[in-house]
Amino acid sequence: MRYSLLAGGKRVRPILAIAAFQMFAQGGAQAALEPVMPTALAVEMIHTMSLIHDDLPAMDDDDFRRGKPTNHMVYGEDIAILAGDAMLSYAFEYVARETRDVDPVRVLEVIRLLSNCVGPEGLAGGQVMDLESEGKTDVSLETLTWIHTHKTAALLRVSCAGGAVIGGASEDDVQRVSDFAVKIGLAFQIADDVLDVTQSTEMLGKTAGKDEATNKATYPRLLGLEGSRQQAERLVAEAKECLAPYGERSKNLLALADFIINRSN
Amino acid sequence: MRYSLLAGGKRVRPILAIAAFQMFAQGGAQAALEPVMPTALAVEMIHTMSLIHDDLPAMDDDDFRRGKPTNHMVYGEDIAILAGDAMLSYAFEYVARETRDVDPVRVLEVIRLLSNCVGPEGLAGGQVMDLESEGKTDVSLETLTWIHTHKTAALLRVSCAGGAVIGGASEDDVQRVSDFAVKIGLAFQIADDVLDVTQSTEMLGKTAGKDEATNKATYPRLLGLEGSRQQAERLVAEAKECLAPYGERSKNLLALADFIINRSN
Repeated sequence: MRYSLLAGGKRVRPILAIAAFQMFAQGGAQAALEPVMPTALAVEMIHTMSLIHDDLPAMDDDDFRRGKPTNHMVYGEDIAILAGDAMLSYAFEYVARETRDVDPVRVLEVIRLLSNCVGPEGLAGGQVMDLESEGKTDVSLETLTWIHTHKTAALLRVSCAGGAVIGGASEDDVQRVSDFAVKIGLAFQIADDVLDVTQSTEMLGKTAGKDEATNKATYPRLLGLEGSRQQAERLVAEAKECLAPYGERSKNLLALADFIINRSN
Repeated sequence: MRYSLLAGGKRVRPILAIAAFQMFAQGGAQAALEPVMPTALAVEMIHTMSLIHDDLPAMDDDDFRRGKPTNHMVYGEDIAILAGDAMLSYAFEYVARETRDVDPVRVLEVIRLLSNCVGPEGLAGGQVMDLESEGKTDVSLETLTWIHTHKTAALLRVSCAGGAVIGGASEDDVQRVSDFAVKIGLAFQIADDVLDVTQSTEMLGKTAGKDEATNKATYPRLLGLEGSRQQAERLVAEAKECLAPYGERSKNLLALADFIINRSN
């Protein structure tokens, strides 16, 4: 569990949770972060457990992740499966046990959001559809977008929504930051697909050119490299539009949107 | 998820949750069961997901469970891993979303109990130790008991504790039903080991004689068949003693204890 959780990574999801929290918490950017930290850590734990399981030989069969051998390469498949299971449940335990000074009704809402985004309506559902699309040459843009809305965007959405809920946001506000995050999530995935084509394994910290080698449906294959870049930029613009009502308060989330579209690994 | 959850099974854990709930809920055995049902279903979901993952080739490599081919035999390893992940998170979602007319503080306490019993201090920890003991001929009674306290007894404990918490039990009461359940859990495991030796695959609904074939540490190997039976009876007597203060109110839990020690599959 430690090996994979502490293997690095950009920590995009916890940062989204914190930025969304600060938009709505009393005190704004000066608000103490303690109330949101368990949620911020939980989304990273869920992200990490999904990577551990996705990398397994029975799934995507990846040997490297974040520049290091994958969990099962080091500890074996059995321990990797259990580390993922334990990390998933620990994420819920951590939120339920460590969130202080927050209305329990809001804590339960965060647990509902987190758990919903892992199951059939989230990561697992997206991964199943992804596996079923493997080797197919006729995967449509609609299916690809469905996959990534569930596989990638769901957890980004919940990172923002969870942070906002802990910060005391209204239902409308939670919806707005959720919409923002889904659009950013799709842009993020498109950027990932583009990087897989254009960057080296060393730069990425994971095996490059893998999508092409495994004949995987990707945005570059469906839209071309330039078309993919444009689509990502369009989504980021729409995402930013979702936050227009908040003005200065949304500046950290907006900066994250730029970071995501401009990143090179 | 449906295939494994609806494959039958004795539903011991939900029944424990319901019986413990009725001991403390207003109205007792006449209390409406709605408040405890999400918890009762969640413990069965967690039990089922742990079976799906334990049966995987990388773990215990079992082909049959509850008289049917195991999940990965029907759907493949990838889907079996995802079905387990999705069912684990769905258990938390279900409790968080569907528990009504219960103080949110108590709902959060149930989520804490459930999540704690899956992770390093529960099922996953027990399974890791079990895997590490494989093929070893010098596993002590102490280690074997540690394994089963985590692998088997933890979820039975939480089934009782969760039901009691939803029913409004005090901390002391929760502790007592937890102690009861741990002892019953160990007796349950001993009975399971004995059945593996004495029953046919057909009777069990899963591969019989597997412990012996894989050289697994079991109670019959350490204590003999008769010694194991005696140990199980002693644990059941101690378990019943935990519930002595409750008199008539504990009659359903006591009946379950007898069922567990007398079952033949």
